[in-house]
Amino acid sequence: MKLSEIGAEGLISRIVQKRHLPSSAPGLVAGIGGDAAVISPESAGMLTLVTTDMLTERTDYLPHQITPYQLGWKSAAANISDIAAMGGLPTWTFASIGFRPETDVEYIDELYRGIVECGNCFGSILAGGDTNSVLGDAVISITQLGRVEQNNLARRSGARPGDRILVTGCLGDSLGGLYLLLRLGLAEALSASKNLIEAHFLPMPRIPEARAAVGTGFIRAMMDLSDGLAADLPKLCRASGVGAVVYAERLPISNHLCTGAERLGISAAELAEGGGEDYELLMAVAPEGVPSVTQAIEETGTRVTDIGEILPGGIAIELAGGERRPLKGGWEHFAGEQS
Amino acid sequence: MKLSEIGAEGLISRIVQKRHLPSSAPGLVAGIGGDAAVISPESAGMLTLVTTDMLTERTDYLPHQITPYQLGWKSAAANISDIAAMGGLPTWTFASIGFRPETDVEYIDELYRGIVECGNCFGSILAGGDTNSVLGDAVISITQLGRVEQNNLARRSGARPGDRILVTGCLGDSLGGLYLLLRLGLAEALSASKNLIEAHFLPMPRIPEARAAVGTGFIRAMMDLSDGLAADLPKLCRASGVGAVVYAERLPISNHLCTGAERLGISAAELAEGGGEDYELLMAVAPEGVPSVTQAIEETGTRVTDIGEILPGGIAIELAGGERRPLKGGWEHFAGEQS
Repeated sequence: MKLSEIGAEGLISRIVQKRHLPSSAPGLVAGIGGDAAVISPESAGMLTLVTTDMLTERTDYLPHQITPYQLGWKSAAANISDIAAMGGLPTWTFASIGFRPETDVEYIDELYRGIVECGNCFGSILAGGDTNSVLGDAVISITQLGRVEQNNLARRSGARPGDRILVTGCLGDSLGGLYLLLRLGLAEALSASKNLIEAHFLPMPRIPEARAAVGTGFIRAMMDLSDGLAADLPKLCRASGVGAVVYAERLPISNHLCTGAERLGISAAELAEGGGEDYELLMAVAPEGVPSVTQAIEETGTRVTDIGEILPGGIAIELAGGERRPLKGGWEHFAGEQS
Repeated sequence: MKLSEIGAEGLISRIVQKRHLPSSAPGLVAGIGGDAAVISPESAGMLTLVTTDMLTERTDYLPHQITPYQLGWKSAAANISDIAAMGGLPTWTFASIGFRPETDVEYIDELYRGIVECGNCFGSILAGGDTNSVLGDAVISITQLGRVEQNNLARRSGARPGDRILVTGCLGDSLGGLYLLLRLGLAEALSASKNLIEAHFLPMPRIPEARAAVGTGFIRAMMDLSDGLAADLPKLCRASGVGAVVYAERLPISNHLCTGAERLGISAAELAEGGGEDYELLMAVAPEGVPSVTQAIEETGTRVTDIGEILPGGIAIELAGGERRPLKGGWEHFAGEQS
């Protein structure tokens, strides 16, 4: 069945029937069926977080490679990761989609299932959105609300010289997966490395890790790595008015990436440095707090690595031989390619 | 200058420089420059409203007809109108856009100017968003937050048999403008009726009117007319479990629409009935409250018309001769045309 056959109201009824969009939930005064969702006020001392992120067909994904479930998950995950970056908890998800009228309704079902399951994993509820018809490329625009206690709010701007730079998880897996997909196509890429493809299509927002980290009181600055270390570390440094050095040999690289990089003929370190869509946390940590932060994050089951330190100025990566050079790679949106 | 030349970060800096995106505002703990906007909690007793609405090129607008300023205004207005529908006040606007890399930066400047000026007219501040590159059709996805006192919250579901049905302003102007544009092209349509074209491109959300109306305490149900009376009245009736009759002769029709309809060879009444993108308020009003509601809205400078009444069941329009028939017209999204 096509979207054009059931129409926008039919689609919304279907989303509700499939329990993707609840008619009631604690804190949701009115959800589906009105002109706007109505949400109870946050309890005292809680700040509201709002982030929004759009994915479009061909620019951000290729529909013959990513499943609709993965597309929904990834759209939600990118937003929830921004809530993690601020030290918060996700609360409400709003999904606006634009799809061609000839799109199968089952495709949209799966898309919503991905959005909703990702949200539910981290405590967020789908509370509304918009369904649109488009003539060309499909588009998914998610707005994610969250909450954070005033004293847990993390920003990019608090890093000071001497702070250690920590990252969660491994870097470069998502980019490695993307390169495999572009070079080999889906079937061969999957057989080359299912893990890297999953890292690209099903990223895990670091909500428990972020909450554990800010709970220690030692996080001076934090952000999520969506555009890659080479593009994102300079943003954190600029916001804080500092510099940084990271050590190439310390960048956390998965075994999967080593194997995949070999297949691609690219160095795994380069993929980790450029990265993009890792959705790991990048943190500047007060030096005396490194053991506490490390322990708190490791207790969530996720590794954390000290990759360098904040300097008064200049941003560089130090290679094995001790040579320092600027960081390379990272995503620039309107250039439309890795620059 | 093209978007590809300044990049996403350059674009964001430019939006900030032009003061479209404030770095600080009352209630905004952190705006631009982080992973999410941070907003102070609402005062006690206030509910939060969230709505989101997407416009895409070719489906919702033709770029050679609408100016970027008008496009920005209209995108924001559609969302702010949803806040009006709930009886609320708009607070924060989030704008996610996707444009081709070869788009002129000046076009985007004007788009943001439209978004921001519409928000500012009704007390809303642009607090964040997302800038994306697309390969095909451009897209603008706005998320609008608002606030409303618990006792002023309007829903679609409270209408009761015997309630009067009131609408603000005039109906059909926007659709009349659209038809002129489609038939005659921009230049000739503008000379035929600048007013109808402006109704289509620069709709006015009815925030003061909605606030005046809910303040009387007599609004039983309310929504905004975005898909046209014929499509929207059934939604209000379904939500309330009631029916309705409206009188064709009472539909408020502007002089501009009469002239434009003549030019088009369509009856003005039909345009008013089908409508679409009028963004007027549709209200079910307790019968004894009609004079209060009328007076309160008229004091804002906007006309208001009693067009019919809520019935136990059935939805019809009564023609001049007393004959009743189903409503015709109204917008269905995935059909992609007036149905």
